[in-house]
Amino acid sequence: MCESAAYVIRGEKLERVMDNVVSIDPYEGKVYLTDLLGDQKIIDGEIKEIKLMDHKIIINEYK
Amino acid sequence: MCESAAYVIRGEKLERVMDNVVSIDPYEGKVYLTDLLGDQKIIDGEIKEIKLMDHKIIINEYK
Repeated sequence: MCESAAYVIRGEKLERVMDNVVSIDPYEGKVYLTDLLGDQKIIDGEIKEIKLMDHKIIINEYK
Repeated sequence: MCESAAYVIRGEKLERVMDNVVSIDPYEGKVYLTDLLGDQKIIDGEIKEIKLMDHKIIINEYK
């Protein structure tokens, strides 16, 4: 399976905000994440980096 | 394996611009793509959508 976990950078830490992410849609300063079950989370921020081999989606959260 | 293919929207078509993408880094109006072999491509644009289950990275290219 190719789902990934989404992390937000908070201070010096990466905080995991969602598991089993299957879809990532950045739009107008928000990142819409959808998981395997169809649940959605919306983060105020932008994609910093996606590492598919590490299954990591890293998001810069806006303050 | 979890690598994906990157596509750019041109007109009404999706054009495949890179296979085996393992890393995606959007930065200041460009999207930096890196493939399994470490080759890099830089697209002037922004991420529109990433569908991990379809292995598709879709980029809006700036004109």
